[in-house]
Formats: sequence, structure tokens, C-alpha cells
Amino acid sequence: MPDPVAVIGLGNMGLPIAANLLAAGFPLVVYNRTEERARPLVTKGAALARSPAEAGGRARIVFTMVADDLALDAVVGGERGLLAGLTPGGIHVGMSTVEPATSRRLADAHRAHGSHYVAAPVFGRPETAEQGKLYVIAAGPAAALEAARPALQVLSRGIAHVGDDPGQANLVKLTGNFLLLVMLEALGEAFAFVEKAGLDRLAVLDTLNGALFTSPVYHANGERMCRGAFRPAGFQMALGLKDVRLILRTADRLGVPMPAASLAHDHLLSAVARGNGDLDWTAVSEVLREAAGLTPAWARLGSPSAT
Amino acid sequence: MPDPVAVIGLGNMGLPIAANLLAAGFPLVVYNRTEERARPLVTKGAALARSPAEAGGRARIVFTMVADDLALDAVVGGERGLLAGLTPGGIHVGMSTVEPATSRRLADAHRAHGSHYVAAPVFGRPETAEQGKLYVIAAGPAAALEAARPALQVLSRGIAHVGDDPGQANLVKLTGNFLLLVMLEALGEAFAFVEKAGLDRLAVLDTLNGALFTSPVYHANGERMCRGAFRPAGFQMALGLKDVRLILRTADRLGVPMPAASLAHDHLLSAVARGNGDLDWTAVSEVLREAAGLTPAWARLGSPSAT
Amino acid sequence: MPDPVAVIGLGNMGLPIAANLLAAGFPLVVYNRTEERARPLVTKGAALARSPAEAGGRARIVFTMVADDLALDAVVGGERGLLAGLTPGGIHVGMSTVEPATSRRLADAHRAHGSHYVAAPVFGRPETAEQGKLYVIAAGPAAALEAARPALQVLSRGIAHVGDDPGQANLVKLTGNFLLLVMLEALGEAFAFVEKAGLDRLAVLDTLNGALFTSPVYHANGERMCRGAFRPAGFQMALGLKDVRLILRTADRLGVPMPAASLAHDHLLSAVARGNGDLDWTAVSEVLREAAGLTPAWARLGSPSAT
Amino acid sequence: MPDPVAVIGLGNMGLPIAANLLAAGFPLVVYNRTEERARPLVTKGAALARSPAEAGGRARIVFTMVADDLALDAVVGGERGLLAGLTPGGIHVGMSTVEPATSRRLADAHRAHGSHYVAAPVFGRPETAEQGKLYVIAAGPAAALEAARPALQVLSRGIAHVGDDPGQANLVKLTGNFLLLVMLEALGEAFAFVEKAGLDRLAVLDTLNGALFTSPVYHANGERMCRGAFRPAGFQMALGLKDVRLILRTADRLGVPMPAASLAHDHLLSAVARGNGDLDWTAVSEVLREAAGLTPAWARLGSPSAT
Repeated sequence: MPDPVAVIGLGNMGLPIAANLLAAGFPLVVYNRTEERARPLVTKGAALARSPAEAGGRARIVFTMVADDLALDAVVGGERGLLAGLTPGGIHVGMSTVEPATSRRLADAHRAHGSHYVAAPVFGRPETAEQGKLYVIAAGPAAALEAARPALQVLSRGIAHVGDDPGQANLVKLTGNFLLLVMLEALGEAFAFVEKAGLDRLAVLDTLNGALFTSPVYHANGERMCRGAFRPAGFQMALGLKDVRLILRTADRLGVPMPAASLAHDHLLSAVARGNGDLDWTAVSEVLREAAGLTPAWARLGSPSAT
Repeated sequence: MPDPVAVIGLGNMGLPIAANLLAAGFPLVVYNRTEERARPLVTKGAALARSPAEAGGRARIVFTMVADDLALDAVVGGERGLLAGLTPGGIHVGMSTVEPATSRRLADAHRAHGSHYVAAPVFGRPETAEQGKLYVIAAGPAAALEAARPALQVLSRGIAHVGDDPGQANLVKLTGNFLLLVMLEALGEAFAFVEKAGLDRLAVLDTLNGALFTSPVYHANGERMCRGAFRPAGFQMALGLKDVRLILRTADRLGVPMPAASLAHDHLLSAVARGNGDLDWTAVSEVLREAAGLTPAWARLGSPSAT
Repeated sequence: MPDPVAVIGLGNMGLPIAANLLAAGFPLVVYNRTEERARPLVTKGAALARSPAEAGGRARIVFTMVADDLALDAVVGGERGLLAGLTPGGIHVGMSTVEPATSRRLADAHRAHGSHYVAAPVFGRPETAEQGKLYVIAAGPAAALEAARPALQVLSRGIAHVGDDPGQANLVKLTGNFLLLVMLEALGEAFAFVEKAGLDRLAVLDTLNGALFTSPVYHANGERMCRGAFRPAGFQMALGLKDVRLILRTADRLGVPMPAASLAHDHLLSAVARGNGDLDWTAVSEVLREAAGLTPAWARLGSPSAT
Repeated sequence: MPDPVAVIGLGNMGLPIAANLLAAGFPLVVYNRTEERARPLVTKGAALARSPAEAGGRARIVFTMVADDLALDAVVGGERGLLAGLTPGGIHVGMSTVEPATSRRLADAHRAHGSHYVAAPVFGRPETAEQGKLYVIAAGPAAALEAARPALQVLSRGIAHVGDDPGQANLVKLTGNFLLLVMLEALGEAFAFVEKAGLDRLAVLDTLNGALFTSPVYHANGERMCRGAFRPAGFQMALGLKDVRLILRTADRLGVPMPAASLAHDHLLSAVARGNGDLDWTAVSEVLREAAGLTPAWARLGSPSAT
């Protein structure tokens, strides 16, 4: 039987991850701030921890999937935190999208504690997590990653090991989100352009994706924009805004101007400022449609900005 | 034996297009401003026309592949121009990337003349043209396109018929170039970001393209940037600048702000203003590397700006 | 008695200019496409010309104040145009804001004709024109400017002679409009910032203008924004958009990226695309307020976009 | 004799401020991290404190003028910090440009301590401080400001009281720096434009400032750009970058997109990334000149980027 694993953070992503580990036969310990969310897993055999420390004490490998840098720090530190319970030699696999600097800080703390930190942020939406088809960008000590690999393989269709310094995984993950975000900005501008020219947006997308990109990611996001299928969100605008803030902050520290990131930031910020933070991030198209004098779809979706 | 076809404009794209038509057995008439360029085709059996009018008089289907809107107007109008020689019922297939408004003007002129205009701009670089693997975006009267299809099939791996109004093909083509250009901008910013963070750019590209886009276009352009393989150009920065000007002008008329296009415009303009217009347009990455305090590759390529 | 002068173009600016010349005792010939507009001047003693050519034939100095480059070309050329009537040695003073290239073309045409061209675009709104307090930016042959100076002094509080090449006056004028436009953009962003922070916009403006700029232009435009006094316009957004297009086109030719001009262009374009082109250009503040989640004033002004 | 005052932080701004207070007859206590800087003041009669706490214990009104938010927090907190020594009823006047949130935090700490916090950031360069001609933007409890007014009057040509919440003064100060920064961006773009058009930059500045802004701030900064007088700096690019970061962070929290601030940020960041952080912030013009293909002045100034 495999070693027990723990999952801390049972949100839209953490819950299917935990469920898949359980279904694959891993003895599972779970922790969530509101215990409610853990109920269905406990019913199926997972053990419930009352604190991150307890979760750390009962598993050799602990996955965390929490909202942001602050939440991650909160789960790790303090007297009820993961580090307080994790046995030396234990492995913490941080799957949240956070700043590289946060990962480096955590890696130091684990080193001092005699445990290991692997950053392993993922690409994929909740449905992808359910299907066990996430894509894992991992960085950290090779041995620790190897120990975690069997569990990660259950969750994913691919695992890239991008370096020994955990912060590198976050950098690569942020870079990926940046490329996606600029793709959304480009599609949004392109769609406003062809729509005002009287062309069918989806037909243009199919033509151009066929002629050029042949990318399922262009197709899926472009189609979502054209259909205006912004609710429920696969990835919320508010989360996209969080990520572009991390990108801009990291770029600022590195001394790299990223004007396309600033552009995308401003459009997400505007959408969120107008009460649309819960829509899918493809709805950035509506900011661009409105700028072109078209009626944004959120006026029809009944979000707060429309009242 | 198929009807004779003519090709006007034997530049980097027109020459391989004409050669492929000839090799496929089409009786071929060619015209180029400087006759030199036509020599190898004439050796292989093409007939040389002394004016666009003459080319139009000797072929039922005439392809034009010239530099820009001005050159296209010049080839069509005037007493030695295509329209002066083309027989009623003849078909003009314009393959240049021009403004939609230019195509509409030409379509009107052809209609008045009793001939037909099909806009058929293509995606692909000179190598792609040589391989007969262009992608054709066509718009115009269906019957005229059908008549031209056998020849277009020789040149291409795909033909999309996007509408009856020829201007629509140019719109779709410009939209495609816009999406490509923003992809280049995004890759350029992303690469400056990961380079300053100490990561290997090509490895990050491979990881992210594998995890997300799975697009040969991301791969090929990103790799070119990483290798600094900017000369000889597949597609020159100066031509990219020409196209983004067409995009911005068309968007301005349509009332569509396209800030990502303005961003890309400014970076191409800066590269061209510094004497790098002959480099491949992927060299936009060097504008972004320089902005981040890295040394641009063109300092090594010995372009005018480096002297 | 002074030489007769002519004014061609009796719009919001041309009419008060003509009226002031008449009031100052200049024998006046006027021409306007719709004669209606000339009526009040004729009543007061102005002679009515039936064509620009006739106006040119009856005056030694001819002022033109028309909408744009196209209108200026139309007034000058053709068989009823100014050049057809202007006597050799005559002086054409072009006061419209046009591209430098247009002025250079006109200067050549006048040289060939034996007449002189002075570009003399002005700063000031219709009220300023009424008060005879425009500011003239003039370029062209010194002798021609001297001949026109007595008339220009009636109209203005200052005349700057910026060069012999008429295009230079247009360049300086466009530069001034660019600086104004970026000031409006900056004020608009600043006001959205302080408004959302709960501060009084006008008080902040007064404080900062007092502490820093001490500029009546900051005060007047900022106050207009704060009061939402966008109709009637002093200078319409649609005209501001025209000017920023000239700036961007000229900058593009010169090889100068001007990202702040692109930014302002996009915001004006968006306002115009949404039906607000007739508002004063200070209403660019409303594009920025809306982006920040505030309700733009044009929703209250009953412009087309609000219906 | 007036109450004793203290000055903490004897940098380029703090030193002349302290000197002026001493010269005006205020009994003065000074503290600086490196005591060296205090020497000339001590020679003239100032008392030297060995810690912020000691300075706070010996004066009723304490001015702080330190580098940034972090330095301000460091000076106030901790066992040797200002709050540890300041007597109840004491007044802390914070003159640094910091985030509004920092001021609010300090105000809370003072309230809890029984003392008062006034935020009083200033406009002006070191020379202006020497001349006692700063402009003070103050916010905080009216009584505390009144107590500090006699000292502030020695330092300044104007004092604006913008609110009771100290954060408001920082907001207004940041807004002012934003307007200045966008003015610099606009002047820089305009100068590249006219320089490439062959005009004399300074002459154009004089003409346009005379015709439009009539602002000494436009004149002084524009002239500095034209002369390339970037060293020694009046206000360093690195400090401008710090301030635009505060602006963007505050705007992000408020939900206000500020694209012109992002633009200026990117240009300052680029200059700093290339080793020019110690130049005067008007040198942002050189980023824009270089983008237009002109040789930036820093290549002549021998800064690190030129090696």
C-alpha cells in the first residue's frame, strides 16, 4: 500500500485532486478551513485532520492547494501550521500559483525544519482536475519530486521538472498564465474588429486557428468568448487579476517591463471594478467589445454592474 | 490542358508560386517590373509579358503578388495596367496583403470592366510557398474562386472561402497577422522575463507549448527568437510594420481600439527606426530584451544601428 | 485703407475670425460652401464670393479655415479653387490643423503658381477666436508672413514664427495638441483615482495646480472635467480624434513611437465609437471613469450611447 | 522661544530642512542613521539624538524625512523607535512620500499611543528645500497641523491642508507626482517627434509653453531634457520609479486602471534596468529618443549601461 498523503485546501481544484488520489488507492488525510467541504471525502474513507499540523503529522507527502500567497503562508506557519506537525524528511508539494519569492521563503523554512519543499503549480481548470489531466510544472529537489511523482501522475497528463529551485516552477507557471492572458487580450481585440466588420467571429476563429495555430487552447477560449459562456467560470477574472499582479510584481523586481501584461491587467481590473470578477476570464473580450461601442455581454448576465 | 494563368510580381513569394504553377503543368505567363527575375521561369517554358496589360490579355486567370496597396493599384490601373488588357470574364486573384478598402475598390473596377476579382491573401513564408503549402484565405464571387481553385490547390495546403466580398479575405488575413504579432510580442516579453530570472528560454517554451498551446507556430517562432536566427528573414520586420499599419488603419475606420496592435506597432517601428527592418519579425524580442537591460542580438548582427 | 483680405471657411472658428477682421476695418471677401453662414457678415459690409477662385481674385491675402486636409485640398485645387483665381504674388494663409505633408504640397503648388503659402494654425477655442486672442503658430516665407501680420494681429494675442517651411507650423501645432491631449489623459486618470479614494476632484486640482503647474490650461480643462460641462463643446472629441490621427501618422513617418498618443487615440476613438463625438474632448475623463467602475457622465447627457 | 523640534532623516531633503529650522531659531534635535551627516548641524547648535526614541523624547514635534515606507516603519517602531520615546500629546509630521495605507497605519499607532500623526509630504527638489520654498501637502488632525505650522512655514512657500485622514495627503502627493511623470513622458515623446522632424526642441518648448501652458514646471523640466542635464539629479529616476510603484499599487487597490502610469513605469524601469537609476527623472526622454532611433544621452554620460 502506498504511503499516506494529505491534501490541504479543498476548493474547486483541491477537492477533485483529493478525490482522485483517494480513488487511486492512496490513504488520504484531508484538511479544510471549513470542514463541510471535506465531508464527501470522509464518507469515502479519507481521514479528517483538524489542523494543517495534524495533516502534516499523519502523512509523508502533503499537497497544498490554497487561494494565494497569504493563505499558503497561513497554512504553513504558526503553531497549528503544517511545519509544526510535519515529520523531518516529510515533503510539502505546493500546488498554488504564488510568487517565486514565496516558494523560496517556504523552501528555506522547510530546509531549516529538515523537510522538503516542491513547488508544483498546475495548468488546468476544475474539470481538468476531475479528469486527472492537469499539467504539473514542478521544481524542487529531485528526490522529493520522485517521491511525490506516483501521486502527481494520478492527477496529471504531464509533469515537467523545470529546476531545483522551487521558485522556478512558479516563474514558469506565471509565464504560462501571462501567455494565456495575452492570447485572450489578442482574441478579444480581434473579435471586436471582425464583429464590427460584419464577419462571424467563430468562423474567423476556426479559419485562423486552422491556418495558423492549430491549438486547442485558442479554439476553446475563443469559442467560449464567442458564445459568451462566462458563467459558471472555469477560471475567474478575479483570479486572473491576482495572477497578473504576481506577474507584474515579479517582472518589476527582475527589471523587465511587460507592457502587454499591464494592458491585460488594466482590462481585468476594469472588469472586476465593475462587478464582474466572478465571470470567466475570457470575458475580458467584453471590455474590448464595449470599448468598440458594442454592448458587453455582462449587461445581459445580470452582474452588479448592470443594475 | 488547363487554361493559361499569369503571375504578376515575382518577389520572394511570387517567384516560387509561379514556379509551382509551371511545374504543375499550367501554361504560364509572367510579368515583373525587373525582367531579370523572370529569366529562370522563361528558361523553363513560361511566356514573358512586357506589361500587366499584356499578361492580362494572354491568360484567363491572373495572380498578383506585389508589395503593397500602392503597387497593386499601379499594376491594375493605367494604360499598361492589368485592366487595360484583361478580357471580359477574366479573373484577377489578388494575393497581396492589402487593406480591405483596396480590395473593394478593385472589385468595383473589375465589375465595371466585366471581369472578376478574388482576394486571396496567403499565410506562409517563402519556404512554405516553395513547398506549395501556403494557406489561402479567399473571398469573392464563388464561381470565380472555383475557376481559380485548381491553380490555388497547387500552391496550398488549405483554402478557406470566407465570403463574397473580397475585402473580407483581407480582413481575415489582417486579423491573422494581428494574432501572430501579439503572439510574438507576448513571447518576446515572456522570454525577457525568464531570461532575467535565469531560466533557459527554449526549455520554458517547450514546457509551456507542451502544456498549453501545442502549436507549431508558437514553437517555430519561439525557437527562432531563442536562437536569434533573424537573418535571412522569413518575414521582414518592415513588412510586419506595413501590416500592422493596415490593421490599425482599418480598426480606426471601424471604431475599434486595438491597444495590443499599437504596442506591437511601436516595437516594430522602433526596430525599423534603428535600422533593423530587414531582420525577421521575430526580432521584436530584441526590442523587449533591450528594454529589460539585456544586449539585443542586433548588436551582434552588424545591422546599421550597431555601427 | 488696408488691402482687402478674404476668409474661406466660416465654421465655428472661421466666422469669428472673419467678423474680427471686418470690425478692424479690413475690406473683407468671404466664401463658404453654404452661403447662409456668410449672411451676417455680408450685412455688415463683407463681399460674398461664389467660389474660392473668386475670393482669391478679389483679395491679396486669403485665409482658409476648413475642416481637414481633404477640405483644404478641395478648396485650393480644381477649376473653381483658390489657385485658379489667386493673382501671382498673392498670399494664402492656411489656418487649419493639417498634416505637415499637406502644407508642403500646398507650398509647392503656390510656388509653381507664383504665389505664397504660409501655414498659420492656431491655438484657441471659438470663444478665444471671438475675443481675438488666438495664438498663431506660423511658418512660411518671412515676407509673406509680414504682409499677413497686421491681419493676424487682429486675431491673436501672440504670433510665433517657427520656420520657413510651412510644414513646421503644422508640426508644432500637432505637438501642442499632443501635449494637451496627454494632459487630458493624465487629468482623467488622476481624477478617477482621487474620486474613488473619496477626495474632491476640484480641490485636488486646485491644490496641485497651485503647488506645481500654475497653469490656466490645467485649471480650465480640469475644472471642465469636474463639472462635466461637455456640451456645448469647445473642441469636439471627433476633432481631437482627427488631430491625434494626424500626430500618429506623422510620427509613424518620422519613425517615432508615441505610446501616449496611442493611448489617447484609443480613448477618444472609444468615446466616438459610442456616439459621443460631439462632446468636448475633456470628456475623455468619462472613458477613464467608466473603466474604473464609475458611471460616465454621458449616460446623463442623453447621447446616443445611453439609449 | 519656540518648542524644540526634531528632524529624523538627514538625506538630501532632510538636511536642508533641518538647517532651515535651526537658522529660523527653533531649538533642534536631529537623528540620522549615520551620524556623520548630522555633524554640520551639531556644530551650529543642534542636539544629537542617538535613536529615534531619544529624538522623540526631547521634542514635541518630530519631522521624519526618510527614503520609503519600510524606512518610515523602521524609524517609528521597535524599542529604539520614535513611538517608544515620544511623549503623549507629541506630534509626528511624516514628510516622506509613502503609500496612503502606511500613513493610516501610523495614524492608528499614534492614536493608540496618545500622540498625533500628520502626513506632510512635500513638492520640491533639494534646492527648493534649501530655499525654504517647498510646497507642503498636509493631512491629519487640524490642531496637530496648527502646532506644526510655524515650523512648516519656515520650510515652504505654501501649505495645503487636504483632509483629516493623513492618507489623503499621500494620495494627493502621489497624484501630483503622477501628473508630473505623465508630463515628462509627454515632453519626452514630443521632443523625439520634433527632433526627428528637424526642429529645435527648446524653441518648440518655449513656443508651446508660451502659447498654452505658461507653466514654469513645463519650462524647467523641458529645458533640462533638452540640455541633457541629468547629473547631478534633482530627483532620481530610481525614486520616480519608487513613486510610480506606489501610485500603481494604490490605484490597483482602488480599482482604477491607470495606463499612463503603467507607460511611465515601464520607461523608468527600463532606464533603471539599464543602469541609469541615478540620473534625473527627466532622462526618461532618453528612453523615448532611443526608441526613435536617436542616441540616448546616457551613452555620453558614462553610466554603466554604456560600457
